[in-house]
Order: sequence, then structure tokens, then C-alpha cells
Amino acid sequence: MCITKRVNVETKVLSKNDEAAAANRALFLERGVVAVNFMSAPGAGKTSLLEATLRRLDRAAAARIAVIEGDLETEYDADRIRALGVRAHQIVTGTVCHLDARMVAHALSHFPIETANLLLIENVGNMVCPAEFDLGEQLRVMVYSVPEGAEKPKKYPLMFHQAHAVLLNKIDLAPYCGVALDDLVGNVRDVNPSAKIFALSCRTGEGVAAWVEWFEQAVAAQRAGVRACV
Amino acid sequence: MCITKRVNVETKVLSKNDEAAAANRALFLERGVVAVNFMSAPGAGKTSLLEATLRRLDRAAAARIAVIEGDLETEYDADRIRALGVRAHQIVTGTVCHLDARMVAHALSHFPIETANLLLIENVGNMVCPAEFDLGEQLRVMVYSVPEGAEKPKKYPLMFHQAHAVLLNKIDLAPYCGVALDDLVGNVRDVNPSAKIFALSCRTGEGVAAWVEWFEQAVAAQRAGVRACV
Repeated sequence: MCITKRVNVETKVLSKNDEAAAANRALFLERGVVAVNFMSAPGAGKTSLLEATLRRLDRAAAARIAVIEGDLETEYDADRIRALGVRAHQIVTGTVCHLDARMVAHALSHFPIETANLLLIENVGNMVCPAEFDLGEQLRVMVYSVPEGAEKPKKYPLMFHQAHAVLLNKIDLAPYCGVALDDLVGNVRDVNPSAKIFALSCRTGEGVAAWVEWFEQAVAAQRAGVRACV
Repeated sequence: MCITKRVNVETKVLSKNDEAAAANRALFLERGVVAVNFMSAPGAGKTSLLEATLRRLDRAAAARIAVIEGDLETEYDADRIRALGVRAHQIVTGTVCHLDARMVAHALSHFPIETANLLLIENVGNMVCPAEFDLGEQLRVMVYSVPEGAEKPKKYPLMFHQAHAVLLNKIDLAPYCGVALDDLVGNVRDVNPSAKIFALSCRTGEGVAAWVEWFEQAVAAQRAGVRACV
């Protein structure tokens, strides 16, 4: 397949995805739901971040949260979320390397969100493809694992560029892995000057409170926007 | 795009790729070149592994090595290889999340390998898609970063399944990241009972000699096979 044909096929796939994402967005607006798309490479700590975040929210807020998990195989991540008493739906993609808007729409047909006002979507672990597929979300959060190196924002810029917040996770490992945090932050900033950047460790808890505080405010701001539109 | 259409498009893309991979394989055979495809998630340490491996080879062997690097953006990795006196060609894929056989064929038209007998191909950092695209290589090596967690072989099985060798890199971080190496090895073994598994650290050098010894033998065995076919 030549590059031109590939681009045509990709363009059609993305155009169809955009239609489905617009329908999801309209549904979220109608239901008063704020949807957040969490993206990262495999093992950067998305599920650990969701756990750390959910544990810091009060019970009333947690009761109105729904989580969609995306993985090629297993229900491990949904089980981890359910263990916290939060409803979760697992999308098993098989060989597909990202979530798309139709998968989310299909999940929502089986996983009613009527009583939810916040939908957290954990994408498939992949630093490239998920960033190309709009799910209809209002917020995009990227989790990055510090031991993966300081130069990755330059080599894989799209996901960093699209995120409203970039979370530099596993900073507890920074002293042992030879990655200069300042260089990493500078590279994120070069690719995305407006993203909110948090350095944290989901394992030790360092920096998590500051992230959760920002996240609650960002969700509240989106919710105010949603209400204004209803 | 419905799932059936997506599958049809993917099947066509992969079928075209298989044709190009077969042509690459024939070219490698004709030239007496052993080609090795190095795959991993971003930041697992493929380039560091290539550096550590190249440093341990004698000058005569290194002179007959060529390296192809794949990244979405930048020539950083090719520059790191060239700094060791080894010829390297960078494929910049733009938005494409993997190398395919046509990209490698195209690179070979600009990057003559007549005097090489070993071609090391560093794929784009992605734990999913590269495993779906045969490049015509004789050996597949997967690098995995221990801090990414013990359960990933179960969640992203294809690349682990296809590798002749799985290298568990960054074991120097194991004491600090709460990942049980035995569980990780067990999960790799469940997905791929026949893969050679090495635990190592490209940063400290621990375990690298054992990997290089195996790699030299595996390449020699492939070369004997190549010679037998010429």
C-alpha cells in the first residue's frame, strides 16, 4: 500500500471517528457528564493514577464517577477500579492499539452513565495512536513515566501536544535512572507551552494532592461549561 | 467504519506488508545479511541496548553492522549510533506508529548494505503495532522496562509472544519500583515458553555480557543458515 493510499484510508477512519466523537460529546453534554481521556505508554501508571485520584475524592463524588478501561487483553484494570467501589467497564480491544469513539459509544450502550457526572476513560497503553482518536472527551490527561527518558516529548510529540495536563509519574525513581527532570519539563514545555505539568509519584503519593486539586477544579470548570450549555 | 471494514482494511495492509517483507527477506538472503528487529514501548531502552551491544563487539564485527532507526520525529537515535562509529539511517515516520517492510525497503535503497552482514533495526517505540508488521527480519528482540510492571505480558501479549529474546531492562530500578521480577518472568514465560529471557541493565551493565554472548551465537546460527541457502 503506497503512502497516498495509506493516508486516504487513515483520513477516512479518522473522519468516521470524528463523527462518532461528536455524537459522544453531544451525549455527554445532554447528560451533564464531563469525560476525561487518560493516555500514556504501557506501564506509565494510568491505573495507579486513577486509584490514587479516586482514593482522594469524597464518597459522594466517587459515587458519581464511572470508569472505562481499555486494554488489548485482560480485565485487570477494571477489577482494580471496582475494588475501590467505583463502577468500571473494560473494553478489550484484542489487537487494536487505541480506543476510538465508536468503542466508547458501544461501551456506553452496555454501561449506563445516567447517574454519573464524571467519566474517566483509561486508554490503551500506547504513546502514539490514542492521541489520533478523539473520543468526545472534554479533557485529555497524559501520564508519562520519568524513567522513559527526558527526550521523548521531542520524539513522540503529538500526545504531549494534545494534553491539557502532563503528569510526570515515578519521580521517586528519578534519582536512580539518570533522567534530568528539568530537561524533561523543558521538552514538554517546548512541545506544549500551555499544558499544566505535575511531577508526582503514584507509588509514594508525592505530588498527587496538587494534581487532584487541579483536576477537581478543571472538572468543575468543564461542568460549569456543560451546565451553561444545557 | 464498522469493525468488519476495519478488519478488511487491516488485512489488506498486512497482506501488502507481507509481500514487501518477503522481498526484504530475499534481499537479506542474497546479500548474506542477518536482520534483527528490536521492538519495545518508548523509553524501554532499545537505543541504550544497541549502544551497550555495539560497544562489546570487536571493531571488525562493528564495521560490518548497519543500523536503521525508526522514530516519529528527530534523528536523535541515529546520531547516538553514529557517535559509536557505526553507520546508521534514521526513518522518520511522522505519525506512523511502527515500521513496515516498505519503509525498510525504501531505506535500503538510500542506505546501501553491501558491505554489511548484520542489520539492526530499531523499531518505533510502541508495545502494540510494530509486532504486527513483519520487516523480513530473521530475529526479533523485545526490550521491556521492568518499572512498567509485572503484568504487561498478559495485557499486551503479541510482542512478547513473537520475540526470540525478551530483555528485561532497568533491573537496577527493580528494588525501588515494587515490581516482582519473578512474577514478570513467569508472565513472559506464560505468553512465550520458548523465548530466551535476559534480566539486565543497560545503564549499569549488569547482565549485558550474557545477552551479547547469546546474541552473537544467535546471529552466527542465522548466518550459517543464510550461507547454507546461498
